[in-house]
Amino acid sequence: MATQGKVITCKAAVAYEANKPLVIEDVEVAPPQAGEVRVQILFTALCHTDAYTWSGKVLDPEGLFPCILGHEAAGIVESVGEGVTEVQPGDHVIPCYQAECKECKFCKSGKTNLCGKIRGATGFGVMMSDRKSRFSVRGTPIYHFMGTSTFSQYTVVHDVSVAKIDPKAPLEKVCLLGCGVPTGLGAVWNTAKVEAGSSVAIFGLGTVGLAVAEGAKAAGASRIIAKRFGVTEFVNPKEHEKPIQQVLVEMTDGGVDYSFECIGNVSIMRAALECCHKGWGTSVIVGVAASGQEMATRPFQLVTGRVWKGTAFGGFKSRSQVPQLVDKYLKKEIKIDEYITHNLTLEEINKAFELLHGGDCLRCVLKV
Amino acid sequence: MATQGKVITCKAAVAYEANKPLVIEDVEVAPPQAGEVRVQILFTALCHTDAYTWSGKVLDPEGLFPCILGHEAAGIVESVGEGVTEVQPGDHVIPCYQAECKECKFCKSGKTNLCGKIRGATGFGVMMSDRKSRFSVRGTPIYHFMGTSTFSQYTVVHDVSVAKIDPKAPLEKVCLLGCGVPTGLGAVWNTAKVEAGSSVAIFGLGTVGLAVAEGAKAAGASRIIAKRFGVTEFVNPKEHEKPIQQVLVEMTDGGVDYSFECIGNVSIMRAALECCHKGWGTSVIVGVAASGQEMATRPFQLVTGRVWKGTAFGGFKSRSQVPQLVDKYLKKEIKIDEYITHNLTLEEINKAFELLHGGDCLRCVLKV
Ligand SMILES: [Zn+2]
Ligand SMILES: [Zn+2]
Ligand SMILES: [Zn+2]
Ligand SMILES: [Zn+2]
Repeated sequence: MATQGKVITCKAAVAYEANKPLVIEDVEVAPPQAGEVRVQILFTALCHTDAYTWSGKVLDPEGLFPCILGHEAAGIVESVGEGVTEVQPGDHVIPCYQAECKECKFCKSGKTNLCGKIRGATGFGVMMSDRKSRFSVRGTPIYHFMGTSTFSQYTVVHDVSVAKIDPKAPLEKVCLLGCGVPTGLGAVWNTAKVEAGSSVAIFGLGTVGLAVAEGAKAAGASRIIAKRFGVTEFVNPKEHEKPIQQVLVEMTDGGVDYSFECIGNVSIMRAALECCHKGWGTSVIVGVAASGQEMATRPFQLVTGRVWKGTAFGGFKSRSQVPQLVDKYLKKEIKIDEYITHNLTLEEINKAFELLHGGDCLRCVLKV
Repeated sequence: MATQGKVITCKAAVAYEANKPLVIEDVEVAPPQAGEVRVQILFTALCHTDAYTWSGKVLDPEGLFPCILGHEAAGIVESVGEGVTEVQPGDHVIPCYQAECKECKFCKSGKTNLCGKIRGATGFGVMMSDRKSRFSVRGTPIYHFMGTSTFSQYTVVHDVSVAKIDPKAPLEKVCLLGCGVPTGLGAVWNTAKVEAGSSVAIFGLGTVGLAVAEGAKAAGASRIIAKRFGVTEFVNPKEHEKPIQQVLVEMTDGGVDYSFECIGNVSIMRAALECCHKGWGTSVIVGVAASGQEMATRPFQLVTGRVWKGTAFGGFKSRSQVPQLVDKYLKKEIKIDEYITHNLTLEEINKAFELLHGGDCLRCVLKV
């Protein structure tokens, strides 16, 4: 490639300050160093974690400004740094905010999808090798975000953070497999391990909550209590005077087998746990709460057999399993298209953030 | 038997009021009704739950006065009511505060050791069939406690609450299999499912905590952090300025694989969760907290892969598994004798409660 080894100047949406509109800038993207991959991003969606970071509610070290946000995207490898063997220029990829090095204590544990290898750098908005950013605008470094920074025509990621996918997959769809959809499906399949015949309650029906519902349907759940989109029952907390957990316990003869909190609200996390059936009910926290917030319950809830868990990226191992999810989509075993309610361009990103805060947007995909 | 079908007058320790010394009374014990079993108690130990209920810290409906406390005992069946087939007079038994009917939704779930059948009666200090007590003193009914009431020479229990054991077992030892020892062993084996090579932290080293340590050793844990009695390391929170969870995380390169809270203190419950390793650490609540107390943590602790659970009677199915534990004791696969630090008689029960509050008593066994 003509650009290999050179700085690329391209368009990116830079977040200079919390809550200030993103600015489309000419950004300089340095070439990838050893163990790094430069990716041309073709499509990126917006996720609530982007909006949330942009709102400034996240404390340091995550959420440093100025930065390039974005973590749900798909693109093509432009060039690779020294020692990178698993992808090469031209490969279709999905950047993964959960890395998978296959070598660290976490990756080798067989018990988690978290990876410890690059967290000490990505958590600070920089790359591992030199603890610097590959982005700059007029000489000023711009921080990376979640190890992905996909609101840019080109980004640099660690090689442990790219999943190589089938080139037949439509990138404008499978970009969603970078975050929300796998998070919901995996919360059901990997974290809760919902069995056929189970009852399931879902709190929050954005993309993640709907993916939980899809995952539960696929797992054979017999009752899925939530609202909208083919789920079996509807509970509107505003129509009930009693606490929602009590309404659900009464509706389900003792509580649900599984519940999922997909909002990030600590009071709802408690309700989600307490609506679970005594003896075995499992509640999974999927939503991300504001920093500093705490969830609480009476210990009796756990002593009588309920289990409280959480999930990150649905427990999927990113580089190993994102390509499998792409294949499932190509075989029509999982849905993606239904979550895409809007399509815009990178230039319209501020409008896309507004849409995300409105009620009828699930995912807005930006052509980059 | 000469006593069959008749009221038996015998000695029992009656708790008339919270915090007032128990009174040794001549108690009338009615014959067992359908589905009930009258048991001659030969040995009973004291457990912290007895002391706790006696202290009056438990809210209604549990902890009604006047009552006969006691739930860790062994004895011999004196007579059985109509329809009782699984035990007969002369059988050696351990009364079980966790029933096992083998027929209810809970028993049939395959997911829990809790049983729903008689809870609606035992929770109110009465028997199922007529919602009345079988105990009285001079015409005044005395409430049952935990469905066992073993501080009496004779007690009446539901047939789903007695485990028939090998008559060769020494009742003065195996009485401990009614509560504390199985709770600790089962928390490790059934609830946490600790694997060989794991690291384990134990908070609180009374009988239950020590049984957790024994269970962890038997499961092949490579590091057991706590204090006293053959456990591998010692951490005294008073010697550290940092929060105990931070000390433990540093000692164990990221946290322990499993932790057990055996105290009933909600702050310690939090520490126990937070000293677990990111990605997979599991914390089990074994201790019983004062009513109304709440435990809290940041949701991030669970989203990053920790699991918060609890256990009651260590997850053992009482009627099925207590006899197996007795067999394990007879085969010297589990220890009991080591927990018995004191031996007294039923008449000395108030002294026994004092001992329990002192530092060097694990279990005091009363000859009844
Ligand atoms: Zn790794
Ligand atoms: Zn996301
Ligand atoms: Zn006990
Ligand atoms: Zn039952």
